[in-house]
Amino acid sequence: MADAVRGWHALADRNPLVRFVDACLRGVAQVLLQNNPLTGLLILAAIGWGAFESGHPRVLGGAVVGVTVGTATALVLRVDEASWRKGLFGFSPVLTGIAVPTFLDDRPLMWLYLVLGAAATTVVTLALNAVFTRWGLTAYTFPFVLTTWILLMAAYQFERFTVMTRLPPGFPGEHALTGAAVDWGLVPAFLRGVSQVFLIDSWISGLIIVVALLVNSWPSALFAVVGSVGATLLALWFGADGASLDRGLFGFNAVLTAVVVGAVAHRPGVLVTAYTLFGIALTLLVQMAMTTALTPVGIPVLTGPFNVATWLLLLPDRHFASVPHHERVTGAVGSAVRRRGGKADARRKG
Amino acid sequence: MADAVRGWHALADRNPLVRFVDACLRGVAQVLLQNNPLTGLLILAAIGWGAFESGHPRVLGGAVVGVTVGTATALVLRVDEASWRKGLFGFSPVLTGIAVPTFLDDRPLMWLYLVLGAAATTVVTLALNAVFTRWGLTAYTFPFVLTTWILLMAAYQFERFTVMTRLPPGFPGEHALTGAAVDWGLVPAFLRGVSQVFLIDSWISGLIIVVALLVNSWPSALFAVVGSVGATLLALWFGADGASLDRGLFGFNAVLTAVVVGAVAHRPGVLVTAYTLFGIALTLLVQMAMTTALTPVGIPVLTGPFNVATWLLLLPDRHFASVPHHERVTGAVGSAVRRRGGKADARRKG
Amino acid sequence: MADAVRGWHALADRNPLVRFVDACLRGVAQVLLQNNPLTGLLILAAIGWGAFESGHPRVLGGAVVGVTVGTATALVLRVDEASWRKGLFGFSPVLTGIAVPTFLDDRPLMWLYLVLGAAATTVVTLALNAVFTRWGLTAYTFPFVLTTWILLMAAYQFERFTVMTRLPPGFPGEHALTGAAVDWGLVPAFLRGVSQVFLIDSWISGLIIVVALLVNSWPSALFAVVGSVGATLLALWFGADGASLDRGLFGFNAVLTAVVVGAVAHRPGVLVTAYTLFGIALTLLVQMAMTTALTPVGIPVLTGPFNVATWLLLLPDRHFASVPHHERVTGAVGSAVRRRGGKADARRKG
Repeated sequence: MADAVRGWHALADRNPLVRFVDACLRGVAQVLLQNNPLTGLLILAAIGWGAFESGHPRVLGGAVVGVTVGTATALVLRVDEASWRKGLFGFSPVLTGIAVPTFLDDRPLMWLYLVLGAAATTVVTLALNAVFTRWGLTAYTFPFVLTTWILLMAAYQFERFTVMTRLPPGFPGEHALTGAAVDWGLVPAFLRGVSQVFLIDSWISGLIIVVALLVNSWPSALFAVVGSVGATLLALWFGADGASLDRGLFGFNAVLTAVVVGAVAHRPGVLVTAYTLFGIALTLLVQMAMTTALTPVGIPVLTGPFNVATWLLLLPDRHFASVPHHERVTGAVGSAVRRRGGKADARRKG
Repeated sequence: MADAVRGWHALADRNPLVRFVDACLRGVAQVLLQNNPLTGLLILAAIGWGAFESGHPRVLGGAVVGVTVGTATALVLRVDEASWRKGLFGFSPVLTGIAVPTFLDDRPLMWLYLVLGAAATTVVTLALNAVFTRWGLTAYTFPFVLTTWILLMAAYQFERFTVMTRLPPGFPGEHALTGAAVDWGLVPAFLRGVSQVFLIDSWISGLIIVVALLVNSWPSALFAVVGSVGATLLALWFGADGASLDRGLFGFNAVLTAVVVGAVAHRPGVLVTAYTLFGIALTLLVQMAMTTALTPVGIPVLTGPFNVATWLLLLPDRHFASVPHHERVTGAVGSAVRRRGGKADARRKG
Repeated sequence: MADAVRGWHALADRNPLVRFVDACLRGVAQVLLQNNPLTGLLILAAIGWGAFESGHPRVLGGAVVGVTVGTATALVLRVDEASWRKGLFGFSPVLTGIAVPTFLDDRPLMWLYLVLGAAATTVVTLALNAVFTRWGLTAYTFPFVLTTWILLMAAYQFERFTVMTRLPPGFPGEHALTGAAVDWGLVPAFLRGVSQVFLIDSWISGLIIVVALLVNSWPSALFAVVGSVGATLLALWFGADGASLDRGLFGFNAVLTAVVVGAVAHRPGVLVTAYTLFGIALTLLVQMAMTTALTPVGIPVLTGPFNVATWLLLLPDRHFASVPHHERVTGAVGSAVRRRGGKADARRKG
C-alpha cells in the first residue's frame, strides 16, 4: 500500500496528466478538507453509487466535469502551484458540477451551463479567498454556494431551463411541518447526513465517505459522524420537518463544521470538543434561518450554513490549541486552512 | 454619592462576584454606549417597568439571563479583560435576552433557546468585531441583530417554537398604511422611541432611560431625545404607518445613531450636529428599506438600521472633530468606539 | 478643438464655478469610467433626448440636480481635491438623480427625496470606497445602487410616495416568460443596452453615448458595444424575457463590465479579451440571479450585477497585463480604478 502511494506520487511528479488527475482527486477529497487522492477516489465512488441508485447517473458525470473544468480553469489563470496540487481549486467546482444536474432538468444546454458554472466557481474561489485571507480565513465551499445560487436563481429567468428544487418559492411557515417519526431509522439518517455533503441521498454512500475519511484521518471521520448525529438529534428535539430529517438534510452542514472546528483548525482537546458541539448547534440554527430566508426565492441553502457558522466560530480566534502554522502547511490534513491564530502560535513557540 | 461610587469600584476590584455584576450592569448601559453601572441599573428598572406593565414579566427575566450568560461566555472564551469590565460583551446579549421572550411563545424550551442564543451572541460579537476593527469600527449591536434574526428565522422551521412578531410574512405594499393621527400624543411617542431601543413599549420606561443617560452624560441624553423626535417627525411628514409611529417604532434606531454620531464619536459642534441630523434622516430611510426587505420573511428590523446607517456615516471618517483616541480609551463614554480617525488625530496632536 | 479644450481647462483652473461645472460633467462621464467633460456633456444630451422622447423631462432635471447635489456634498465633506476634480463624486449621484424620478411618482416631495438621496449617495461613496480600498478596488456605481434600493424600498412604507417600477412584488417564476422575437430589431436593442446604463430606453440616446465614448477612448466605445451585443445575444439564446430584451435591459450591466475589465483595468490583449467575454456571460448570470432575488420586494437590479461581477472578476488580480499604476493615476481613462496589481506591476517595473 505505502509503495503504491509512493509510486503514485512519483508518477504525479513526472507526468502532467497524472498530476492533473491527482489534483482533481484531491479536489474531491478537499470538500471534507482531506488532502489525499485515495480519499477523493472513494468519495467519487460514493457519489457514483448514489447517482446510479437514485436513477440520475448524470450527477456523477457532472461531478467529473465540474472538478475537471474547475481545476483546468485554475491552470489557465495561473494560480499558486502548491495550492493547485493540493486540490484547493477543485473542491468547490466538483460541488457545482453535482448541483447543476441535480437541480436543473436534463438537456444539452445544461452541460454548457455546468461548464460555465464550474469555470465561474474557480474565479469566485480566487475572488473570495482574496477577501477572506485578510482575516486569516479561506472561503471554504462558499464559492460553490454563491455560484450555484447564481446559476439557479438565473435559471428562473430563462425559458430554456427548469429549476427542480423541491422548494417552490413561498412564504416561510406556510407549510405545516410533518414532525419526525423516531425509530431506528435514525442510523441511516445519520449516514445520509454525511452523504448529503455531496448532495447524495444514500446511507451506503455516507458509509463509503466515512471510510474515505478514515483512510486519511480518523479524527475527521469521528467528527464527521459526531456532526451528523448531533445536528440531526437537535433537529429532532426541536421538531424539525420529519421528511428532511430522514433524508439527512439537517446533518450535512454540521458534518463540515465539526470536521473543520474539531479536527482541522484546532488540536483535539476538551475545550475544543465543547466548542465544536456548540458549533454544531449554531450550524443547525444558521441552516434553519437560511432555509427561511431563501424560502421566497425557492433555492436550497447548500453548504452556506457551514460557511457562515464556521467563519463566525473561527474569526474570534480563541487560541485554544490552534494547529501551529508549519504543521498545517506541511501536514496533509490541515493544508486547506491557514489561520492567523496558527501563525501567532508558531511565532510564540518558535 | 461620589463615595458610594468609589466604594462600589473598590468592591468590584476586590470581589469577583461584584466585578461580574458590575460588568453586567455596564453591559446594559453600553447598549446606549454608556460605561456606568448606575445607568445600567436604571435601564434595567425601565425594562422591568415595561415588562410588568405589558404583562410579560418574563422579558425582564430574559434581559437578566441574557446579559449574565453573554458576559459569562466571554469569560470562558478568555476575552480582553479591560473590554470585558467595561461591559462590551454584555450589551448585545442583553438585547437577545429581551428579544427571544418578546418574539417567541412562552414555554420551557424557549429558555434553553435563549441561553444558546445569548452565548452565540458573544461568539458573534467576537467574530464581527474582528471584521470591523479593520476599518476602525466596532460591530455595535449588530451581533444581537444577526443572532436574533437567526433565532427567529430558525424558529419558523421548528414545530416546538411559534414566532409571534406582528409581521406575518407577505409582500411589501400589501397592507394599506393607516396614516398618522397628529395630536399631543406625540410626546409619549417620542419617549416610547427611546424605550424601544430595549424593545419596550412604554413612555415611562423611556423617561427612566433618559434619566439614566443624564446620570452619565447629558449630551447622550440630549441626542437620544433629538434622534427620537427627529425620526418620528420625519416619518410623520412622509406618511408612515400611524400605529407603529405611536408605539415609537420609528424613533429607536435614530436614538442610537444620534447618540453615537452626535455625542460619542465626535466632539460636539455645528458641523457634527448637521451631520447627525442628516444621519437621523438616513437612519429612518434605512429602517424603512429594511422593513420592506424583511417583509417576505416576517421578522423585525431590530436595531439593524442603526448599525448600517452608523457604519455608512462613520466609515468616511470626515475628521471633523473626532474624539482623540486617548480620551476615548480612558474616558467613560467613548470607550465602546475606537476609530481610525481618532488614532490619526491623536498622532497629529501628539 | 484642442485650443477649446485647453481654454476650458485654464478656465476651470481659475474660476471656481467653471471648475464645479467641469467636475459635474466629468462626473456624468465617469459612470462609464471616462474622465472627459465633453463626454459628459454628450451623455447629458443623450439623457435629455431619452427623457423628452419618453415624455418624462423631469428625468433630465433629476440627472442635473443629482450630479450637482452629490458633487456639492463632496465639497462640503472636504473630500480629496484631485478625485473630486476627476468627477469621482458625481457618477453615482447622477444615477440616483435619474432613478428617483424614473421610479417614483411626480410630486414636489419627490424632489426633496432626490436631494436627500443624492447627498446620501456621496456619503455612501466615501463609506464603500473606504471598504473596497483594502482590496485595491473601488465601489464603482454601487453607492448609487445601494442608496437607490434604500430609497425605493423605503418609499413602500410611506403613504406620500408611490413606487412605479414595472415589477410588483411577487415570487420568481410566477409570470410566464414571453420569449423573444428575433428580427433585425436586435440592432436597436443593442444600442438601448448602452442607453440603459443611464436608465434611458432609446437607441438614439445609445448612439449618442457611443459617440461620447469615442470622443475620449475608442477601446471603451468598442467594449461597450461588445458588452451589450454579447449579453443580449446570450440572453436571447437562453430564452430570457422578450420585452425586456428588446428594451436593452440585458445589455447595460455587461456594457459596464466590458468597459472596466476589457478597456480600463487591463491592457488590451487576447487573454484579456477572453476574460472579458467570460465576464460578460458572468454579468448576465449575476443579473438574472439578482432579478430573481429582488422579485419578492419589487425593486430593479440597477447596475448591481455589474458591480458584483466586476468585483469577482478583478479581485483575483490575475496580473495579465494590468495597467501600471502610474499610467492609471496620470492617464485620463484609468484614473477611477486603482488596482493592487497595478501597484505591484509599477514596483516591478520601476
